[in-house]
Amino acid sequence: MSLPSGFVGALREALGAPGVSDDPATLEAYAADALGRGHAPDVVVRPADTGQVAAVARLCQQHRVPLVVRGAGTGYTGGAVPVHGGVVLSVERLNRILEIDPVNLTVVVEPAVITGDLQRAVEAQGLFYPPDPASLDSSSIGGNVAECAGGPRAFKYGTTKRYVLALEAVLPTGEIIHTGSKAVKNVVGYDLTQLLVGSEGTLAIVTRITLRLLPFPPARATVLATFADIRSAVNGVTALVQLGVIPAAIELVDGDSLRAVEAHVGRPVAPGANALLIVEADGVPAAVQEEIDRASSALAASGAISIARAATDAEREELWGVRRQLSFALRATGLIKINHDVVVPRGRVPELFEEVERLKAAHGLRIACFGHAGDGNIHVNLMLQPGDTGEMARAKTAERELFTRVVALEGSISGEHGIGFAKAPYLDIELSRDEIALMQRVKQAFDPAGILNPGKIFPS
Amino acid sequence: MSLPSGFVGALREALGAPGVSDDPATLEAYAADALGRGHAPDVVVRPADTGQVAAVARLCQQHRVPLVVRGAGTGYTGGAVPVHGGVVLSVERLNRILEIDPVNLTVVVEPAVITGDLQRAVEAQGLFYPPDPASLDSSSIGGNVAECAGGPRAFKYGTTKRYVLALEAVLPTGEIIHTGSKAVKNVVGYDLTQLLVGSEGTLAIVTRITLRLLPFPPARATVLATFADIRSAVNGVTALVQLGVIPAAIELVDGDSLRAVEAHVGRPVAPGANALLIVEADGVPAAVQEEIDRASSALAASGAISIARAATDAEREELWGVRRQLSFALRATGLIKINHDVVVPRGRVPELFEEVERLKAAHGLRIACFGHAGDGNIHVNLMLQPGDTGEMARAKTAERELFTRVVALEGSISGEHGIGFAKAPYLDIELSRDEIALMQRVKQAFDPAGILNPGKIFPS
Repeated sequence: MSLPSGFVGALREALGAPGVSDDPATLEAYAADALGRGHAPDVVVRPADTGQVAAVARLCQQHRVPLVVRGAGTGYTGGAVPVHGGVVLSVERLNRILEIDPVNLTVVVEPAVITGDLQRAVEAQGLFYPPDPASLDSSSIGGNVAECAGGPRAFKYGTTKRYVLALEAVLPTGEIIHTGSKAVKNVVGYDLTQLLVGSEGTLAIVTRITLRLLPFPPARATVLATFADIRSAVNGVTALVQLGVIPAAIELVDGDSLRAVEAHVGRPVAPGANALLIVEADGVPAAVQEEIDRASSALAASGAISIARAATDAEREELWGVRRQLSFALRATGLIKINHDVVVPRGRVPELFEEVERLKAAHGLRIACFGHAGDGNIHVNLMLQPGDTGEMARAKTAERELFTRVVALEGSISGEHGIGFAKAPYLDIELSRDEIALMQRVKQAFDPAGILNPGKIFPS
Repeated sequence: MSLPSGFVGALREALGAPGVSDDPATLEAYAADALGRGHAPDVVVRPADTGQVAAVARLCQQHRVPLVVRGAGTGYTGGAVPVHGGVVLSVERLNRILEIDPVNLTVVVEPAVITGDLQRAVEAQGLFYPPDPASLDSSSIGGNVAECAGGPRAFKYGTTKRYVLALEAVLPTGEIIHTGSKAVKNVVGYDLTQLLVGSEGTLAIVTRITLRLLPFPPARATVLATFADIRSAVNGVTALVQLGVIPAAIELVDGDSLRAVEAHVGRPVAPGANALLIVEADGVPAAVQEEIDRASSALAASGAISIARAATDAEREELWGVRRQLSFALRATGLIKINHDVVVPRGRVPELFEEVERLKAAHGLRIACFGHAGDGNIHVNLMLQPGDTGEMARAKTAERELFTRVVALEGSISGEHGIGFAKAPYLDIELSRDEIALMQRVKQAFDPAGILNPGKIFPS
């Protein structure tokens, strides 16, 4: 788009010259996120405080200029991409941990704090922020809030939304609002806090986040089991849940993913196995011991080929090694990885894998799966040859079939990554016309002019 | 109000005659809830299914007739009271448990199921629905969802909202929508599920609820400690949280409440004590043992006068007896009990009690406090002489001072009961004009004509 005349000057007046950039290199640097499909903004602003954020919003509102908020740019669905140009507002200068409160088990942060840094800062005081997206050392807490990030520990601890107590946010019309409170319960008016979490930067600009913490679990232990097939592994998950055990994490890796890791590291990691489970327990020491004992028995009874237990941190790291190698191993294949984070009720994971097998056969595709089996949240990675347009077309067909099947299995097309613009064409597989219309009216309640992150979530 | 001509006939045509009543006795029976301040509706409908609910909504929409949903009528803030008359829609015929799914740990219910019945039904299959409002044997799950009910176990397990995965609901404009899914994660579009939980029947009529369950904890144990003063008791809470212990519940009873119980049961229950804590742990047996050991040590180190432990169910019931007697004991005083469920960050509970002492002295009021200390959620009960208008006026002044102080302590004026019409005049103590206006725009997105539960939440 072309910006209104005088607009950049007005931004510079509000933010000071260092807060506003429109040189081509900067615009290019803020064009894309981890999805890898970008569109350059017309100007990039880096406000220094909430007041400057509000000033930018008012200017964009006044001139009807698209306004797209950007955190660390690690999103998988293009949430931070300014698909209609306009302003990218990077929160990178809002990067302070403002308060760690060990008495009330809370932390107050600005959105650009890297999630891993936040975790380490609270752990130094014996506290625990559980959500652990794979991107935790590169993604920011603001982005985690915008997308409602998950991770392995969501099985026991829930996703980001469970930890967000209060938000300071700027509406696209310029008002500064505060939602929730530092108290852990609050039923005063509508729960705007939970509405903003996962709203993908389309409703408001979050400038301050109050998170609930837990005491850091004093003990932790891990068990890794291999299985001949996916169904046995999923039976193992069901068996241990039914024993009354709630591990911190239950992670699943399928045969294709295991073979990719073996090719990458140059040695067998799970010989004879077509599925692998990693189960981690945490809590007070006696509980951890008991849970790992029960988990091991349940996994053995479900037909595990091998079971390995780790107690020390070094042994734990070794068991998690396979899981951690996965992204590198899949990337090292040289193929394009299209990662879909579908989710089904846990007991229907075997049916999800049947669908994946069908898609492989029907469309001649390579698909590697791994993920959070306890939550039924499986990352289905379509592995495509760069430049093969025929394969890409088949993948597009397979995606729609996958999403349709997932919804038929009472699941959801996204458990972690959100919709952005990448999945917007598929929204109507999961939501009815009435439901989409209602969400669009909610969007209008926050953003009557539709300037905030346009082109996201809703099919255009 | 006077209903439009032909309106009741149209309702009868849609629902059949047994589903529609406008005789004076029925209207009177549906006028009030547990707040005790009612207003009669003009007609009561009892739809048999979701389609009939939608038909009622469409008729009310067409004729602009107020529509108020009623569950079990146990709310404390008048949420089910038709303050502007019109239609009361009682969900009493939507009372089935539709599916208990032990593999996926979910249950699907209709809104009129009594929460205690739901808990017992899932417990029979080894499953656990944690939220435990004091009213659980009389309140319905639909009401619990509408208000986001809490209870003692919220400390470890969270409130109702943590368990609601999916909803079927009818909009006041008549559309039937489905939010969320049976999968435990879902980030597709806005989280309307969480927005509807706690919305006090002002956004949509919930007709079906899918809840997440947990495995029933195999073991449970309880410890009761008495203290010379509130501050020592709260220090005990802080100490045990900082040891890394997360009990299922941490309940606090103050001296005035203890004395009321003693007067009621005719014997000392906590001699020499001005505060009492009940701590309950649940989980795998070894963990429960370790947590109770740690909790007892922490309470002793914080200066407990006495510590009693219970392991058997009979012993547990005895320890909980004091807590369970509280409502009866306070009612038996013959005074009117006005129960405010304020909440502050846990570490600020001593400051909250200082405010209560100040209010007692400044306004000559009797105030008894108890509640969920782990959550900082204290029920502050103003005990008033019936007919004493001077005391009632002083109580009104004290309420506003209490709420103002609670917000200054970074808390909230309601942690469990919601706003209804009873607390609507105080909403602006906690929320700014911009925040209230935003919530009203959200309300309009669901209910453009403003027919659904008018006169609630927002100051008129």
